[in-house]
Amino acid sequence: MTQPESDSNHLIVDMQPVGRRIAIEVGKTLLDAAQEAGVGLVSLCGGEGWCQSCLVRHTSGEINPPTQSELDYLSDDELKSGFRLACQVIPRTDVRIDIPPESLSTPQRLQVEGVDFDVPLAPIVEVVDLELAPPTIEDLRADADRIEDALAERGLPEVRIELPILTNVSEVLRKQKWSIRLALRENEVIAILPSGSGIYGISVDIGTTKLALYLVDLLTGKVAAKVGEMNPQIAYGEDVVSRIAYATQNPDGRRILQNALVDALNKKIHEVREYAGINDWQIVDAVVVGNTAMHHLFAGLPVEQLVFAPYVPAVNQTLDIRAGDLGISLAPGAYIHLLPNIAGYVGADHSAVILSTELWKTEKTVLAIDIGTNTEISLASRGRLLSCSCASGPAFEGAHITNGMRAAPGAIERVQIMDGQIKLFTIDDEPPVGICGSGILDAVAEMKAANLMDERGALIEGRLNVRRNDADQLEFLLAAASSTGHGRDITVSRKDVNEIQLAKAAIRAGQEILLIKAGITADDVDEVIIAGAFGTYINIPNAIEVGMFPDLPVQRFRQIGNAAGMGAIQALISVEHRKLIEKVIKDVDYIELTTYADFQEEFVKAMYLR
Amino acid sequence: MTQPESDSNHLIVDMQPVGRRIAIEVGKTLLDAAQEAGVGLVSLCGGEGWCQSCLVRHTSGEINPPTQSELDYLSDDELKSGFRLACQVIPRTDVRIDIPPESLSTPQRLQVEGVDFDVPLAPIVEVVDLELAPPTIEDLRADADRIEDALAERGLPEVRIELPILTNVSEVLRKQKWSIRLALRENEVIAILPSGSGIYGISVDIGTTKLALYLVDLLTGKVAAKVGEMNPQIAYGEDVVSRIAYATQNPDGRRILQNALVDALNKKIHEVREYAGINDWQIVDAVVVGNTAMHHLFAGLPVEQLVFAPYVPAVNQTLDIRAGDLGISLAPGAYIHLLPNIAGYVGADHSAVILSTELWKTEKTVLAIDIGTNTEISLASRGRLLSCSCASGPAFEGAHITNGMRAAPGAIERVQIMDGQIKLFTIDDEPPVGICGSGILDAVAEMKAANLMDERGALIEGRLNVRRNDADQLEFLLAAASSTGHGRDITVSRKDVNEIQLAKAAIRAGQEILLIKAGITADDVDEVIIAGAFGTYINIPNAIEVGMFPDLPVQRFRQIGNAAGMGAIQALISVEHRKLIEKVIKDVDYIELTTYADFQEEFVKAMYLR
Repeated sequence: MTQPESDSNHLIVDMQPVGRRIAIEVGKTLLDAAQEAGVGLVSLCGGEGWCQSCLVRHTSGEINPPTQSELDYLSDDELKSGFRLACQVIPRTDVRIDIPPESLSTPQRLQVEGVDFDVPLAPIVEVVDLELAPPTIEDLRADADRIEDALAERGLPEVRIELPILTNVSEVLRKQKWSIRLALRENEVIAILPSGSGIYGISVDIGTTKLALYLVDLLTGKVAAKVGEMNPQIAYGEDVVSRIAYATQNPDGRRILQNALVDALNKKIHEVREYAGINDWQIVDAVVVGNTAMHHLFAGLPVEQLVFAPYVPAVNQTLDIRAGDLGISLAPGAYIHLLPNIAGYVGADHSAVILSTELWKTEKTVLAIDIGTNTEISLASRGRLLSCSCASGPAFEGAHITNGMRAAPGAIERVQIMDGQIKLFTIDDEPPVGICGSGILDAVAEMKAANLMDERGALIEGRLNVRRNDADQLEFLLAAASSTGHGRDITVSRKDVNEIQLAKAAIRAGQEILLIKAGITADDVDEVIIAGAFGTYINIPNAIEVGMFPDLPVQRFRQIGNAAGMGAIQALISVEHRKLIEKVIKDVDYIELTTYADFQEEFVKAMYLR
Repeated sequence: MTQPESDSNHLIVDMQPVGRRIAIEVGKTLLDAAQEAGVGLVSLCGGEGWCQSCLVRHTSGEINPPTQSELDYLSDDELKSGFRLACQVIPRTDVRIDIPPESLSTPQRLQVEGVDFDVPLAPIVEVVDLELAPPTIEDLRADADRIEDALAERGLPEVRIELPILTNVSEVLRKQKWSIRLALRENEVIAILPSGSGIYGISVDIGTTKLALYLVDLLTGKVAAKVGEMNPQIAYGEDVVSRIAYATQNPDGRRILQNALVDALNKKIHEVREYAGINDWQIVDAVVVGNTAMHHLFAGLPVEQLVFAPYVPAVNQTLDIRAGDLGISLAPGAYIHLLPNIAGYVGADHSAVILSTELWKTEKTVLAIDIGTNTEISLASRGRLLSCSCASGPAFEGAHITNGMRAAPGAIERVQIMDGQIKLFTIDDEPPVGICGSGILDAVAEMKAANLMDERGALIEGRLNVRRNDADQLEFLLAAASSTGHGRDITVSRKDVNEIQLAKAAIRAGQEILLIKAGITADDVDEVIIAGAFGTYINIPNAIEVGMFPDLPVQRFRQIGNAAGMGAIQALISVEHRKLIEKVIKDVDYIELTTYADFQEEFVKAMYLR
């Protein structure tokens, strides 16, 4: 069976927005279902019904009425809205549930560490401490004028004090007893803080699937906290195109997607603030990166034109937007700096990759590849920078793969096939429950190396563990029911192999076109930088084996993790780096693959397994 | 009877927020009550119950159930909320009603005309027409970049395109088929309009009692429409101090007052737009003036410190605030320019008076007096500008006067007492129903001239129409019941005279202190400019008679109407005038009367009638 089906002993549980369907035995709970499906539902009390951490929302199908535990712990409003504790719910028919982001354990493999960076600390926001004279009957200057005058007395330049600061200026000055620390951003007052307060900034990488947020101490340049989260927009569409469809086809759709993101970011900001023991006024600056669609949806920009040829962004330039205008809770006057986009499908996140990989200044020939649902590739060659984007699809995130899953405990992340033995490695060494991106890539490479299929990806009947399924199609048995966490087989189908072929072919064709455009060949490439969470975990020799990358010595490959996040941090702590990337991006030579005559040919060539 | 009382034949109707109480005969309607009280309730159908214009809200007391007319014309929601048609309601007990601003006829004397002005047209917003190349697969520039590039091709400076414009840029460019008119404000895009569109600005004078709004064509400098309205904040307090009390003592009070004002302004903007046949995007600029409290409440600034010594504003400087940040519906990027304040009780409206009266450049010695609940006075003398504020109270608006009323049909506006004859002039020549500000000032002056009272304002028993009332106090019968619109006497009491004495003494003392400070005397004054609606209608010789102004030849007095509104228009059509007044205000010498040693003495002196 490639798709779970219900029968007299089994019921289907459809889990949204993670997009997992699983058949569970009648009598099992939703928590069992989530665990069998490899969905990381939090369960602190181990299913005893008292920790409330496995909160889910029941949206269709029949289930048992609330148990005493649920009546004790959930409010009437929650129960009315369909909220239940997954450990207490036993489906009576096929059901569908929504899992809110806070009930999901932080994805195990969310990449919040990255390359080291060495950028001189020069944030755009600086501080000035002032002692003001309180007003008296002889000194009737307005409160804001008093600040201006004190700066002038110190010989400092005139500052702008805008509405978000003025709104509270009188109360704050009196509360701080006229002894204050100003946070100043290019001569604009961002916050009026108590004398001596620390100031912080946040960097955010908005991925289509995941968010990564860093809190950075702007007086030291150190990362003070970091946190990851699912992008809550997943509930409105798995990929960029379906989200744009939602945004444009629903009344107020754009605002709904924006609000979902803003709410999630505000929660994360609250978390890192609590962790660092600071208040919202101390966060005086922010840098946000994301692909062009995420960038536009976050800023509330038009997105419809991104899905119609010729796919142009509303804006590529650097943006500085008041945090309050987007509903983000920082210091009253704080701005959010968005790095520039390059094209409709090469966004600010890739600009950040170019920044943090120093592609802008290298004298070597370097390919930088940020693998995701869209894969962005840049090539630095002889002082030129060429970029393109390829639609690699969500296969490497475990989607559209029969037993695919996200990187979570029990996911098969490594596969070795040697001498007729299949060796599996799972995340957290849990019994396998599915295959994540690096695992399926490994599986395909090893199956090919073991000659279980031909160079077109067709499985060869009779070879090791290759068998016919109920639909009389060939499949490869990766893990037998007896060894898995859910007691069912984990298999790789012809279709799964094909998904990987399509994904890797797109990525490879993109590289080849850039090389052709630069007038060089793969052999000229000194370094291949692989960015992104998935890219960090792949087995490079196997990726070469399936033809995802050119056949270069593995020493030339460098896996650097969340380079976009690192670039965002660099832009946060260095105003020079903001100017730098803005300038660099202007000279990027963007190649639109869909219009490139040779693309189809390169793509078909790249479909083959070596 | 100085206060209306109910008896077996009469019931009291208390009308809010206008603050009028009247006793009406049993069986009369609320519309009758309003008309007898001189409250300008709109009644297009003459009380037949079909025009819905006399909509009021019943808040206490017993009344008849809704009539068929009301059931026909009012919604269930309206009826549930207490809304009724005044012409259909017959009180059964003493009642209280709220009259919404839209049910009040535009105050008859709202001053929307003013002095002529001769200011070269140079608004801050200019237009540029552009023809853009649509994107193609060979030309993938982002939408916003396309605008930048087109300006660069024309040799125009780089512009900023901020979020409010970017939010719609892609849709708008496609809708206008890439042929657009940009409204530019100091290199920032304010609106993207169809090629050839007209652009407009609004000037607003926010009075404590009334709003005046002008729509100005920014391509010609002509006033295209003007409209007046009650300040809806009256519902939260009649004067500045009670509004600040409301703002600071109620949760979210500041925002409630701000929203009331913003809603009223948006309605008026909609009205003038409809009248001029333009859309909101065509209004690309605005100038707002008001006293410091109105200025602060409009902009959402702190006000509490305005009512505690030493009464300092949060900000005096010129402000430019994005209209959208205040919820005002103009072009997406439009700013609202607020003229600078001078002190806690000398606000941006007085700055506008200084601007429009050219006090900043006169070589003569000029007093400019803007009479209102607070009266602001400026003195130009030998290149200096001195300003002060005096609490003249609401007596000149008819408040706190036994038979006082606002300037509306039936209000006594002129009084002559000659040879034992009392001659009355009413607004619209209607039978008298009360006395408005200019009428009470006239009455007091004429009563004094006719020796009906002494120089302290004490009525002299036995003189013309001076009689004892039911409380055995002396009062002057101005109009006998037989001649009035409501069949009851209209009188002037000792207390009424005293209210006028207090008001005029404050205004006179302010003038005297400024003269002392400037080291000159009244005789040195070449011109006395009287600004404001009330000031336009007063009889100057009588105002001199009661000692409100120094005894100068009447030729030296000039009544100029709404000088604040005119100043706001000048600042709207001339960016130079904005800079000018900002500079002038910095050098104004503000005199805080409450701390001035001689003020009390001058005030007591000024209490006497000549």
